[in-house]
Amino acid sequence: MKDKILEAIKTELTVIEEALKSNLNSQHPFINQVSEYVIFSGGKRVRPLLSVLSAKLFLNNKKSLDKKILNYIYQTSILFEYLHVATLLHDDVVDSAEFRRGRKAARNLWGNQATILVGDYLYAKSLKIASSLKNPEIMEIITETTLIMSEGEILQLLNLDNTSLTEKEYEEVIFRKTAILISACCEVGSILGGANLEERKILKEYGKALGMAFQIVDDLLDYTSSETGKDLGRDFKEGKVTLPVIYALKNSSSQEKERLLYLLKNQKTSEKDFLEAKFLIEKNRGFIETLERAKYYVNKAKESLTKLPESFYKNLLLFLADYFLERKK
Amino acid sequence: MKDKILEAIKTELTVIEEALKSNLNSQHPFINQVSEYVIFSGGKRVRPLLSVLSAKLFLNNKKSLDKKILNYIYQTSILFEYLHVATLLHDDVVDSAEFRRGRKAARNLWGNQATILVGDYLYAKSLKIASSLKNPEIMEIITETTLIMSEGEILQLLNLDNTSLTEKEYEEVIFRKTAILISACCEVGSILGGANLEERKILKEYGKALGMAFQIVDDLLDYTSSETGKDLGRDFKEGKVTLPVIYALKNSSSQEKERLLYLLKNQKTSEKDFLEAKFLIEKNRGFIETLERAKYYVNKAKESLTKLPESFYKNLLLFLADYFLERKK
Repeated sequence: MKDKILEAIKTELTVIEEALKSNLNSQHPFINQVSEYVIFSGGKRVRPLLSVLSAKLFLNNKKSLDKKILNYIYQTSILFEYLHVATLLHDDVVDSAEFRRGRKAARNLWGNQATILVGDYLYAKSLKIASSLKNPEIMEIITETTLIMSEGEILQLLNLDNTSLTEKEYEEVIFRKTAILISACCEVGSILGGANLEERKILKEYGKALGMAFQIVDDLLDYTSSETGKDLGRDFKEGKVTLPVIYALKNSSSQEKERLLYLLKNQKTSEKDFLEAKFLIEKNRGFIETLERAKYYVNKAKESLTKLPESFYKNLLLFLADYFLERKK
Repeated sequence: MKDKILEAIKTELTVIEEALKSNLNSQHPFINQVSEYVIFSGGKRVRPLLSVLSAKLFLNNKKSLDKKILNYIYQTSILFEYLHVATLLHDDVVDSAEFRRGRKAARNLWGNQATILVGDYLYAKSLKIASSLKNPEIMEIITETTLIMSEGEILQLLNLDNTSLTEKEYEEVIFRKTAILISACCEVGSILGGANLEERKILKEYGKALGMAFQIVDDLLDYTSSETGKDLGRDFKEGKVTLPVIYALKNSSSQEKERLLYLLKNQKTSEKDFLEAKFLIEKNRGFIETLERAKYYVNKAKESLTKLPESFYKNLLLFLADYFLERKK
């Protein structure tokens, strides 16, 4: 079963990759060059993948052979990757990031100006794809999602120096920053697959919980990733408070708390400082409790699918939820 | 007649202003604060105004009394102002602008980071308003417009140091930067008013030509505005080549050309440098030929309305075209 699932995911990813490539067709070589750099830089394609799987979950046998419908599903799925990458580009400018996914950040190669504008371009591109569906319901989901996401980015910026960020506030930010988009991927996918209202709601909930788990794991991997990329520890070095720090601060002695805050606020964090912080977080259960919280959301995501009948694609979505929890990078 | 027209415009602007205010309703005070600062900073509301007038042009007597339809028209019109302001915010970051409309630029008060993100927010907000119309045709016009606009911004950035920019290349940029949006305002307005396909095309053409004229006059006023705002000469000081410079370079002696290019490329343009450049441009017919080109587009805009029957709103649109040409700020 697992082999069949992995094989299916691999096939989907190949088709998605093709669709991503064939859609970058600006008349201006520079726009394509920058877009290609940021889109083909080792992204996991989580969002398009979830969108396609959420659609296929509801396709009956007849529809699942209809090339036109399938094409429609793949073409739609990539809008979520463009949208995601657009937010990464603006994030990198806002954070003055040097690296992204182990490579130089786009702003490091083409400057902040071009990076902001190519972000705008990819955002516009993604909404253009959405509008070509001529489906007002889907359009409303996507525009509502982007609005909430943009509010989330601003909240995150305002919270940057807030070292007393609570777990609740943190979750509010990641809901807006990540979960709402992954939720939209799944909901829109399910609509394209022909889901009814109840089924749509199930996929929306699945995506939301999965998105929360995904971001929590991401924030954990910023400390513990097996990849020794140059962007490891990026959050901490930027002074960004995420769940591992929140839990560690809660559990630590006042002396350790003071030290951790000092390291976090330090403008020039050395590798040694980062390792010390990592040690303090580990010691104060920051990582283990973060993983527990991610598990909570993964289980929530899986439970939301309970009402759906058994099927290959349901198993695939259940598998993915566990897979996201176990990823090491 | 002129009094009646001015009165009508004044009334429209009051309603538009109200709609702009009532729609800024983020839960987050900071977002509203920055948005208000940039939206209520003396914008001329050209885009919403044209959208409303283009709708009213086609409303029959019965519809023009229907409050629901009218509300729909005003609510839609403001999306164009939000979209416009979003691009201004990103422009200001890209250009490192200190001032906008004679006041401190938002980035000067809240920094580049918040300015980029509030730009994203207003962009998302404008598309959210668009999607609430549940009209796929309008949505496609708007997303196509934003895509072309974002390409225009990138083109402009790439052309920044191109002192051999041709008139044709300049017009390609301003078409994307300004005319396409003003064209969309008019076309979308006409659709809301109930225009048929031919009528829509007329309004689209009117808006396109008017938009070209509007930007050309804007670029002229950057040198000749009666307002002695701190952003006077902004284009020149940034080294941006616009139509007055293109014409002046074409007409000047090689000595004057060299001097003008020197002043343009100078990183720290003093007020004296700017005045010297202005003198050289004036002497070499840069301003007068630019005004001629704006006139050409104003006439084109007016001519595109020829096929429409006489009406109060047609006169209003004709009046506005002339008014845009004559504005001094």
